[in-house]
Amino acid sequence: MTTLAALTTPCLLLEDEKLQANMDRLARRLHERGVSLRPHLKTCKNREIARRCMESPTGPATVSTLAEAEYFAAGGVRDICYAVGIAPNKLERVAGLRRRGIDLSVVLDNEESARLLVDFARQRDCRLAVLLEIDCDGHRAGLRPDDPRLTAIAALLRDGGQEVRGVLTHAGSAYDLPGTEAITALAAQECAAATTAARLLREAGFPCPVVSVGSTPTAFFGEDFSGITEVRAGVYVFQDLVMAGLGVCRPEDLALSVLTTVIGRQGDGRALIVDAGWMALSRDTGLPWKRDAFGYGLVCDEAGQLIPGLRVTETNQEHGIVSGPSCPALPAGTRLRILPVHACATAACFDSYILLQDGRISGRLERCRGW
Amino acid sequence: MTTLAALTTPCLLLEDEKLQANMDRLARRLHERGVSLRPHLKTCKNREIARRCMESPTGPATVSTLAEAEYFAAGGVRDICYAVGIAPNKLERVAGLRRRGIDLSVVLDNEESARLLVDFARQRDCRLAVLLEIDCDGHRAGLRPDDPRLTAIAALLRDGGQEVRGVLTHAGSAYDLPGTEAITALAAQECAAATTAARLLREAGFPCPVVSVGSTPTAFFGEDFSGITEVRAGVYVFQDLVMAGLGVCRPEDLALSVLTTVIGRQGDGRALIVDAGWMALSRDTGLPWKRDAFGYGLVCDEAGQLIPGLRVTETNQEHGIVSGPSCPALPAGTRLRILPVHACATAACFDSYILLQDGRISGRLERCRGW
Repeated sequence: MTTLAALTTPCLLLEDEKLQANMDRLARRLHERGVSLRPHLKTCKNREIARRCMESPTGPATVSTLAEAEYFAAGGVRDICYAVGIAPNKLERVAGLRRRGIDLSVVLDNEESARLLVDFARQRDCRLAVLLEIDCDGHRAGLRPDDPRLTAIAALLRDGGQEVRGVLTHAGSAYDLPGTEAITALAAQECAAATTAARLLREAGFPCPVVSVGSTPTAFFGEDFSGITEVRAGVYVFQDLVMAGLGVCRPEDLALSVLTTVIGRQGDGRALIVDAGWMALSRDTGLPWKRDAFGYGLVCDEAGQLIPGLRVTETNQEHGIVSGPSCPALPAGTRLRILPVHACATAACFDSYILLQDGRISGRLERCRGW
Repeated sequence: MTTLAALTTPCLLLEDEKLQANMDRLARRLHERGVSLRPHLKTCKNREIARRCMESPTGPATVSTLAEAEYFAAGGVRDICYAVGIAPNKLERVAGLRRRGIDLSVVLDNEESARLLVDFARQRDCRLAVLLEIDCDGHRAGLRPDDPRLTAIAALLRDGGQEVRGVLTHAGSAYDLPGTEAITALAAQECAAATTAARLLREAGFPCPVVSVGSTPTAFFGEDFSGITEVRAGVYVFQDLVMAGLGVCRPEDLALSVLTTVIGRQGDGRALIVDAGWMALSRDTGLPWKRDAFGYGLVCDEAGQLIPGLRVTETNQEHGIVSGPSCPALPAGTRLRILPVHACATAACFDSYILLQDGRISGRLERCRGW
């Protein structure tokens, strides 16, 4: 099986050359600025891709679920940050991974979670590694860098025998910002929040060896990473229309696409019906100001060339509606590719990637699932 | 393991009593009106649930993917309608199922698809069963009931040695209609479209034994199914907030929920952060006019009691933001349940259901995946 014609639709295509170029671009940029990359593997959820974007086969890496941590650990990754606030029901699995020699760190931003962690560690006689989450932009989680609770939580953890490894922040509001200047400013703000929190913790006697920041937009537009020990980014390996909308990449840089088949046309000929609905594309419509331009994805021909103006304008479970200013009357059976709005969400619809090299199928890559 | 306390979050809970009541309610309603039910298994994607909602262990059933058709066929279902316009790359698998004795019918609405099917069947020397898709409301696919292309396509199929089994329509615009009277009128329109198309086909010499309609709203609000041989409906087994918003059910009828854990609070206390993001809830926000009221889901305590006013107002990949007019300062570690906006989409995030009987865990039910 070497050509696309043999594939049943919908399926998820991954172009190796674009993947490699995307990985190289960020790695080079951060290397030039002297800061380490801890890729967020929640986007790819695959060991081979992880191996190609991590600085070494053992890491460092970031994950969003313990299922990912366990999957990547089984593949040889040893240095993993689980970057979602830890819930007490997950501590047993965290301790299990650490017992097997995995340096898995967890994240929290409140005293209750710290107490639950200390209580657990005391009962199990184990020592966990904790990053304190900092809020740099009011986007989601974390404490403001000057919040006095930070040192109080750090003391609670240290006095409970736990390792306070440092601070972590994520400029999630980068996804709401049109304009590269605004993202460059946000990247500076992200770094300032992390370094300020680290300085205050150090002044209070906590060494704080890790100062972690990151999002794909701020990783690409940040200019000065002084005082930062690592940058996290995930979607950059594939890129997507959200990133294109923010100016991080061009639509032609997108490494992922969904192969689909035309199954009919709407009666008046104004739209095509394809066999990729929200089960294959996700319901994610990305940037609100690009909603009309991108829909649920831009449309390419089978070879991957964009068809100007065409987009997926509606999705049902297994039906997608493709339309545009002048919708060509493509016959049923025609195959198209859809570029994803949000690569993390689209990839999550599938259990594997069809890897393409030079436009030909070179293999299949699995995806880790669940929690 | 019998209590919820042992579960890691997020996970998908299914309350058996509510599931049964939902199934019984539609089965009773259609039985009283003398019309057969062909449940759409795209919502549950599970054999045990299928067995409980089908009229017999062998069907009839509706599916949205060939993966479902193969999965249910392996579990003993013999009468299956694949209700998404057939793409040529799927015909080989359709023929394979039919060779194994599965009465799998396919759907199409255009001459090109009919020609591709006839060409395939001629090459493989097989006879497929085809339903012609009718457009009853301008929502998605199908030909208008009086479109002369209908008889032309039927003739093309018959002359090509294929079985023209009948007509199928779906009043998908029911999901856009507030008000039960409007849905009752749409149900009548759905039936009229199907019976008109069947009459015109019969007048042209095609017996048209199957006249298939359905959607959960029109199945619940339709009054007269004269001339209809079967009703398709899927989400009714679980119900969801879209259905509650349409008046089909009440929020307390919802059989599915996502168990989640509070992992922090936003700094100013206006919101909780939980470990169920769009990976667990989906990005589906359902009815536009209920977007603010339902968000990405309503929030219950761990026992399933609604907490008034609370809802998931934002989702990231693994984070949900819960807020409301007066958001309680629940401590990290508190467990909550989220009622799904769109049950098909939320269930698709998980590989299995945790079945609850009387609030205690009684088993785990798998879900079929992929295409």
